[in-house]
Amino acid sequence: MEIHAKQVRPDVKNRADRARMLISCPDGPGIVAAVSHFLHQHGANIVQSDQYTMDPAGGMFFMRIEFDLPQLSVNLLKLEADFEEVASRFKMDWSLSAVSRKKKLAIFVSKEDHCLVELLWQWQAGDLDADIALVVSNHLDMKDYVESFGIPYHHIPVTADTKKEAEQRQLDVIGNDIDVIILARYMQIISPMFIEHYRNRIINIHHSFLPAFVGGKPYAQAYNRGVKIIGATAHYVTEELDGGPIIEQDVQRVSHGDDVTELKRIGRTIERVVLARAVKWHVEDRVLVHENKTVVF
Amino acid sequence: MEIHAKQVRPDVKNRADRARMLISCPDGPGIVAAVSHFLHQHGANIVQSDQYTMDPAGGMFFMRIEFDLPQLSVNLLKLEADFEEVASRFKMDWSLSAVSRKKKLAIFVSKEDHCLVELLWQWQAGDLDADIALVVSNHLDMKDYVESFGIPYHHIPVTADTKKEAEQRQLDVIGNDIDVIILARYMQIISPMFIEHYRNRIINIHHSFLPAFVGGKPYAQAYNRGVKIIGATAHYVTEELDGGPIIEQDVQRVSHGDDVTELKRIGRTIERVVLARAVKWHVEDRVLVHENKTVVF
Amino acid sequence: MEIHAKQVRPDVKNRADRARMLISCPDGPGIVAAVSHFLHQHGANIVQSDQYTMDPAGGMFFMRIEFDLPQLSVNLLKLEADFEEVASRFKMDWSLSAVSRKKKLAIFVSKEDHCLVELLWQWQAGDLDADIALVVSNHLDMKDYVESFGIPYHHIPVTADTKKEAEQRQLDVIGNDIDVIILARYMQIISPMFIEHYRNRIINIHHSFLPAFVGGKPYAQAYNRGVKIIGATAHYVTEELDGGPIIEQDVQRVSHGDDVTELKRIGRTIERVVLARAVKWHVEDRVLVHENKTVVF
Amino acid sequence: MEIHAKQVRPDVKNRADRARMLISCPDGPGIVAAVSHFLHQHGANIVQSDQYTMDPAGGMFFMRIEFDLPQLSVNLLKLEADFEEVASRFKMDWSLSAVSRKKKLAIFVSKEDHCLVELLWQWQAGDLDADIALVVSNHLDMKDYVESFGIPYHHIPVTADTKKEAEQRQLDVIGNDIDVIILARYMQIISPMFIEHYRNRIINIHHSFLPAFVGGKPYAQAYNRGVKIIGATAHYVTEELDGGPIIEQDVQRVSHGDDVTELKRIGRTIERVVLARAVKWHVEDRVLVHENKTVVF
Repeated sequence: MEIHAKQVRPDVKNRADRARMLISCPDGPGIVAAVSHFLHQHGANIVQSDQYTMDPAGGMFFMRIEFDLPQLSVNLLKLEADFEEVASRFKMDWSLSAVSRKKKLAIFVSKEDHCLVELLWQWQAGDLDADIALVVSNHLDMKDYVESFGIPYHHIPVTADTKKEAEQRQLDVIGNDIDVIILARYMQIISPMFIEHYRNRIINIHHSFLPAFVGGKPYAQAYNRGVKIIGATAHYVTEELDGGPIIEQDVQRVSHGDDVTELKRIGRTIERVVLARAVKWHVEDRVLVHENKTVVF
Repeated sequence: MEIHAKQVRPDVKNRADRARMLISCPDGPGIVAAVSHFLHQHGANIVQSDQYTMDPAGGMFFMRIEFDLPQLSVNLLKLEADFEEVASRFKMDWSLSAVSRKKKLAIFVSKEDHCLVELLWQWQAGDLDADIALVVSNHLDMKDYVESFGIPYHHIPVTADTKKEAEQRQLDVIGNDIDVIILARYMQIISPMFIEHYRNRIINIHHSFLPAFVGGKPYAQAYNRGVKIIGATAHYVTEELDGGPIIEQDVQRVSHGDDVTELKRIGRTIERVVLARAVKWHVEDRVLVHENKTVVF
Repeated sequence: MEIHAKQVRPDVKNRADRARMLISCPDGPGIVAAVSHFLHQHGANIVQSDQYTMDPAGGMFFMRIEFDLPQLSVNLLKLEADFEEVASRFKMDWSLSAVSRKKKLAIFVSKEDHCLVELLWQWQAGDLDADIALVVSNHLDMKDYVESFGIPYHHIPVTADTKKEAEQRQLDVIGNDIDVIILARYMQIISPMFIEHYRNRIINIHHSFLPAFVGGKPYAQAYNRGVKIIGATAHYVTEELDGGPIIEQDVQRVSHGDDVTELKRIGRTIERVVLARAVKWHVEDRVLVHENKTVVF
Repeated sequence: MEIHAKQVRPDVKNRADRARMLISCPDGPGIVAAVSHFLHQHGANIVQSDQYTMDPAGGMFFMRIEFDLPQLSVNLLKLEADFEEVASRFKMDWSLSAVSRKKKLAIFVSKEDHCLVELLWQWQAGDLDADIALVVSNHLDMKDYVESFGIPYHHIPVTADTKKEAEQRQLDVIGNDIDVIILARYMQIISPMFIEHYRNRIINIHHSFLPAFVGGKPYAQAYNRGVKIIGATAHYVTEELDGGPIIEQDVQRVSHGDDVTELKRIGRTIERVVLARAVKWHVEDRVLVHENKTVVF
């Protein structure tokens, strides 16, 4: 279909020379000066820079820098190699990536389609700057729809008995070059083994304003508690159910007149928007994780 | 002071003939017809009417009616007496009150002043249509300020050992004609004995988006969990800590850069606004309680 | 595709006997009593009732009633005929419709697809209780996509010279049984002749928080003015450009860092949500128009 | 009164050595490197740094840096002198100020008290890190209240005939060391002569979501237009009425049931919150003005 083909947005500039750097390290004097001096010396021009110091005295320092470097593809490797000296001086965790190298996504889905539909729509509209490499599902419902976008759809049923084998099959079809896995209302608990492979690289959307209403049927829980606002939460998956680092949350007002069906209907739009924002921020290298919290630049 | 004296708002109309009726009963056919017919027969004109049916089949029915009745003060007693027949036919819980009869408030406060200051400001601005009969505190901090409004201030210290006696003293100074007690950041747990005296008539402001972060230090809990939105909750006090029927909630977006001190600062304004709305709705007879939930018209 | 077929939501109850009534009339005593008495006498059970009086003294009265009447299809005509007496007594504008009779929609679209995609998604998800009878466009872009849902797509080009003929062709393809026309980012001004045919039945989405930024390029206007919040507005179309009765608005916070492209991206989600809400409310008979304003129940 | 005396917040750290720098200049390579290198060389430790480039190619560059410098009071003058070289190299507009040197505020008010009360409350609560040097009013209403805080109150009546003299008297009482003037619902138009003295240093709160409803009676305008959301806007005052650079805006949902009196009541809280935020950001050196827009860090 025509609509599915327009994946090149006309207003996206040629960004072949743009790169992003993420840094986490213990705070100390001279970090910003050292990094910006290093980039300047190597001919890079800083376009955007954000930083955050958790606590001026002895805390952690986080930084995201977006810069342009002429002939980036030629110079990136040398830049990385040269930066090692700065990084080791300040004991940095760091990463550097060319903006032109799109992140590769695997989307997991069950039967509820709204989050998947939203991601696909934002992707074909050019708003999600990533490649959707494949979709994995324990159901067949979305197969035709996903394949109409030219995206491979892997149907891998999961039962209590076959869970281990199913996860292995998932890891096999995902392969080795997926950057991030999106659980777009995938109603299965991920095993610690699987999580370990993708530490801070699995994003889940939970249909409540966490930490309220952890676990199953959060809209029914919300209805029973009589809350006046409902929400949704996108977070990285950890071994603790619905307990991982929160990337984004949003909410909407409801009233006594909204029953569970209506809460679900209202919630679907919150879920869509929150998950899409979190995925966008992740693929734009805006999210750093420290212990169980995120820094979002 | 001049500012404290302007308690009569010029734009408030003469509402001597206005009354409000609250009704809860099992749902069934003909309730609206019976009530509106009754009021019409007695010469009342319905100005505003709200209703809600929890579930069309066999659920509960809730109604709030605001009406004008000529010479209300003369006719109110007869109206109440005559309504008994309708009420018993439909097994109604109901109440009827003249708008001109202002609700009497007792405000409990500890050291944090912002919620009390807000209520006093809204009251003197004419936005809170109630009488603030007295303030009770376990501290002396707000004494001069409260008394400058001409409002009695009762300093009743509370310790673990004296709690029972202190609550008895509180009940004594409150007396018998207080309609509702506002816990405006009153940092003491209310005993079941005390709650029993004011069932669904004690409003607390909790400084989190309940049911998240029940109990002490909710802003520190929110900071540690890394939430992206904080909130406050006004609810009726029950025996379960922070577990009573929610009247109102509101939230505000925060970021990783906001430490606990900043969360508290942002939260103070949410708390003020949420508590003031809940109190306003209560004194305007807009809140009905059913089991552990509220209907807010 | 499977996704497009599930237009019957399993949790929608059998509502064959449910109807809705909308009433506007000069305020006066006894209206609620008369209407509810009438319905009760005819065996109807009121499920939901909302009313609003613009000004107690001599203003307008608005009411929406949802009720169940056994064997509605058999009894509806008699109910309508009998209600004439009540209606003429109070000089009512009124309408009565069976909930089971879905409203018929015509959607107009140009090249921007997001609002159309949203409406189609909500429709196939069962959240939009209406029939999408046809789509009209001055471009071919969305043809395949719309037809994949089994919905007729009428391509009617419009130029300055052919506008009159084009509008006549539009009226022809719409025919006589369309209830409401949705301008889902249809970038053509509708002529007074056309509007007259569908008074208060054409819903437009304007991509600004009206009345700010009337007319073309509202996101560029918003950027140039440096606003900190952007919005979208759904309104009925009148002869005054972007000046008709507002049905719904919503907003989102932006920052100095958001350029026009980013404002458009953020705005697309606001537009989608606001238009979908307005259409939902219209087809559920929740919107009454009085002069240039709406009452939304 | 006790409440008015607690102007020292216990949790405010000793910030004697903290300073802030604001920079605006044409964008170009090496700015961040030069500034951070300069600060590092002088022994300063960057605590927070924000930057924004309006357009990577040939646009403007804005930066805010918060840093600690040992013995700041001794070293500040030398730092300023040394920075001249960097500043002239990049054609910077810049300013540097010690955090311990509080900004001095003059507040102008007429009869509506809510914005003034909010600023005074935030100030005494320690949330507004500034000195309120004096209050100027064309009315006497707030005199006693303001003076109870120990703040001088200057009553300067203004009529069409005496406007020029009145403004001169205002300038006289303000003197030469006021940093910023807050129009806290001061219902007089400021003359170009007066504005010229305090370019980008007069903050007004307008009681609408600008640019909607410029000028008088914005709540009545909003009611007549039938908007579903109302707002307030804090902006710097320029010669164009309600047309200056916007610092902050916020909004709240309203309904058809809210008349002008209710819109005003709801609006008062929006106004209070928006103005307080804008003032806070201004005194914390978070706002840079470029042409008719603000950058808020």
